[in-house]
Amino acid sequence: MESELIAWLRERLPPHPLLRLGPGDDAAVLDMARIGECIVTVDLLTSGVDFVLHEVDARRVGRKALAVNLSDIAAMAGRPLAAVVALALPRKGGMRLAVELYEGLLPLAEEFDVAIAGGDTNAWDGPLAISVTMLGETTDRGPLRRDGARPGDRILVTGSIGGSILGRHFDFQPRVKEALLLAERYQLNAGIDMSDGLSVDLSHLARESGLGAELRSDTIPIAEDAHQLAKQLCDGTTPLDHALCDGEDFELLLAVGPDEAERILSEQPLDIPIADIGHFTAQPGLRQTDAAGTTTRLEVGGWEHEFD
Amino acid sequence: MESELIAWLRERLPPHPLLRLGPGDDAAVLDMARIGECIVTVDLLTSGVDFVLHEVDARRVGRKALAVNLSDIAAMAGRPLAAVVALALPRKGGMRLAVELYEGLLPLAEEFDVAIAGGDTNAWDGPLAISVTMLGETTDRGPLRRDGARPGDRILVTGSIGGSILGRHFDFQPRVKEALLLAERYQLNAGIDMSDGLSVDLSHLARESGLGAELRSDTIPIAEDAHQLAKQLCDGTTPLDHALCDGEDFELLLAVGPDEAERILSEQPLDIPIADIGHFTAQPGLRQTDAAGTTTRLEVGGWEHEFD
Repeated sequence: MESELIAWLRERLPPHPLLRLGPGDDAAVLDMARIGECIVTVDLLTSGVDFVLHEVDARRVGRKALAVNLSDIAAMAGRPLAAVVALALPRKGGMRLAVELYEGLLPLAEEFDVAIAGGDTNAWDGPLAISVTMLGETTDRGPLRRDGARPGDRILVTGSIGGSILGRHFDFQPRVKEALLLAERYQLNAGIDMSDGLSVDLSHLARESGLGAELRSDTIPIAEDAHQLAKQLCDGTTPLDHALCDGEDFELLLAVGPDEAERILSEQPLDIPIADIGHFTAQPGLRQTDAAGTTTRLEVGGWEHEFD
Repeated sequence: MESELIAWLRERLPPHPLLRLGPGDDAAVLDMARIGECIVTVDLLTSGVDFVLHEVDARRVGRKALAVNLSDIAAMAGRPLAAVVALALPRKGGMRLAVELYEGLLPLAEEFDVAIAGGDTNAWDGPLAISVTMLGETTDRGPLRRDGARPGDRILVTGSIGGSILGRHFDFQPRVKEALLLAERYQLNAGIDMSDGLSVDLSHLARESGLGAELRSDTIPIAEDAHQLAKQLCDGTTPLDHALCDGEDFELLLAVGPDEAERILSEQPLDIPIADIGHFTAQPGLRQTDAAGTTTRLEVGGWEHEFD
């Protein structure tokens, strides 16, 4: 029951310096006195779309629900602060499920020093849905936006991409520390976290900046998962297709001036590699150039919620 | 489709002085420089529990999703600032539904000067779920908490209660301005908004304050809806039962010292009546005294999300 879960949460939640008033009242109260700009993001994960509950430990679902929000804060090069959690639980087994979801998300919250400020727990006849809203703060550099890319900017990507469906879409590491380090040491012009697939996310950066982009397809860091998935599926898709279109990599995609990009690439300041995979162009549209130097139009394919 | 809805929202949303960066990026950015304490609350409404979609205009559902959050801010005697909206839409007719939900909530957001900062829109095979997270700020008086009631405090209630299911649970007016006015002019010791039913919400105030409470059942302001519902149902429940147990009245329930309560009652500073319906006691448990002076234990019955 709802009241049992709240009692469990009040026992379980660690204190946090930001949290003036935690779960148990009509709302939580956070100390924001030293916060200038507050980043707000919400992500709703639903059964059958973001996870298949009978195929996965619910703890990984809970972790993912928090992690995708951390990734959005990373995309703004911000510091995460606090989160609230809304659950729509199936009536049967709802209590155990809720506890498992929290058991998955709480260790990640502690790792990133995020105060779990409260939530709303509902039971219904529908499947599981979990919505997390996260607050963060910008640094002195301000938020890293999508619309700041300039013609000639290099396209940089962290880590490797494609095939996340094999498991990485649950267990990925949100690039919060990486984004903060990069934004502090270098001039980043625009950025996004790759949730919908490289081609879609690149198209977002390009369109918001009023630009086009050209990928060097042989430089894209293709994940081992993408190779494995192409082999498993045997449907004619290549590892590159998976890197371009799969989504849920949650790596950073950045627009950086050429000189600054060169500095980042030679210094490689992160524990994960950073690759240069192309550049932004004044000419609109997305293109790709292969190893032989042939340039073609890049089909934008990836994840979008379809409804009519 | 998701991108169409975002495009529609970016056109439709009015600018707001708090909103540095609205929908269209990975997260929104709010100017919080002058905010000391930030109130955070989230409420998830689900199909079949909080509304029956084929019986109600979706605009009223959208309005309710925002209104219940405004009511939580009112319960803390805070000022609402901004909200984000997460939708789980059925695939069929999802776009029209999303637009209608927003058309219902946007006028209320404007009325209360709430910045709609962004959201997350999903389609799935499940029924409609809508989660709104709202941020607010406390006033100089600090948040109005549940745990501040003292023995002897009077129990005050705004408006009239019971039978909200006849329509008021959609169209109620969140008591934001009323709570701010009361908190500014008077010393309020504790407060809650009545969402789960008078007996349940009173038990929350009493338990959090380590107290009991005694209602004078003949002084409870029973709504005309409660009378009508009792007549319609013909199941032996009385209008008083509905006032005690129905929930979703979204009126304020307050704990106020005896002298201060007398001042409020004689001044009646709101456009709606304020009634004195009993007092808090050092002795735990809830009791009610009827017009004849007979005191009995008050059964706590109301809304709780049931899951196991």
